[in-house]
Amino acid sequence: MSDINLEDLITDIADYPKPGVVFKDITTLLKDSEGFREAVDRIADHFADAGVTKVLGAEARGFTIAAPVAYRLGAGFVPVRKPGKLPRETYAQEYDLEYGTDKLEIHQDALDASDVVLLVDDLVATGGTAVAQIRLVERSGARVAGMGFLLELEFLNPREVLAPHTDAELFSLIKVR
Amino acid sequence: MSDINLEDLITDIADYPKPGVVFKDITTLLKDSEGFREAVDRIADHFADAGVTKVLGAEARGFTIAAPVAYRLGAGFVPVRKPGKLPRETYAQEYDLEYGTDKLEIHQDALDASDVVLLVDDLVATGGTAVAQIRLVERSGARVAGMGFLLELEFLNPREVLAPHTDAELFSLIKVR
Repeated sequence: MSDINLEDLITDIADYPKPGVVFKDITTLLKDSEGFREAVDRIADHFADAGVTKVLGAEARGFTIAAPVAYRLGAGFVPVRKPGKLPRETYAQEYDLEYGTDKLEIHQDALDASDVVLLVDDLVATGGTAVAQIRLVERSGARVAGMGFLLELEFLNPREVLAPHTDAELFSLIKVR
Repeated sequence: MSDINLEDLITDIADYPKPGVVFKDITTLLKDSEGFREAVDRIADHFADAGVTKVLGAEARGFTIAAPVAYRLGAGFVPVRKPGKLPRETYAQEYDLEYGTDKLEIHQDALDASDVVLLVDDLVATGGTAVAQIRLVERSGARVAGMGFLLELEFLNPREVLAPHTDAELFSLIKVR
């Protein structure tokens, strides 16, 4: 492990996308070759002994971390997509937004009962999309082995939201209080 | 190099998204741990001596190949996004669709004049988005060192479209005639 401070590579954008919100821009980390490598390695190394066969990542930012973690672990990559993006039969799962609901999908043949799944995303905030992804894994008959995030917005209490839904470990690289 | 036939891992979907079109579904390759690794390695290995400092990938499917190629090359990753997704100052470039136009953006600080850039995408078809990405690299003062694609739809002649815009090599793993 190097002494790179990953948090220094994230850019805070005040009042984006609306007043009072601080947006965490990860593009300044992704473009930094050492920071990008370090972030991927730390998540992959943490779950190196978990027997992961598939990594799930949600479009679009989630792909930027989840796909290289899958590559590093020697696992397959399963894209979790917004409705209408996957061409074959899907499982769909709704989740709550601040106002209304949205939906995530995976192909029905993306996972099977032998799969050990790592959920990877750039960010865990309210935990809503993570819960939806856990449901999608369960409907496929597979098992969630862990969840790895670049950023965890602790002040939104995602661990409390997720606790009733899974025993899998939540691991994050940067905690925002 | 292994003897995996990557083409066998792509799923053809007839008449999707509309009659007469054969959609190339790459999710069956991505979920195959050996196929996914092989595809990423072949593109990265081909450009291993090109001095690549940044890999550009376009949302969303492009991220699934381009981000791991960046990781493998030890380069930074730059997401090319649809309008309104990047929070800071961007360069924007229009490109033609079958009907109308669309736009791609990168952050203005994503690249600088010292950067040697590899464009990576799951697919090159008409070449329109690749031309837009070349323009975005040029506006940043950087240089395109090459273009790597999982699939090349040869019957749409992307090489002819791209030739006037760049001297960079186009390398693809699967050619569709």
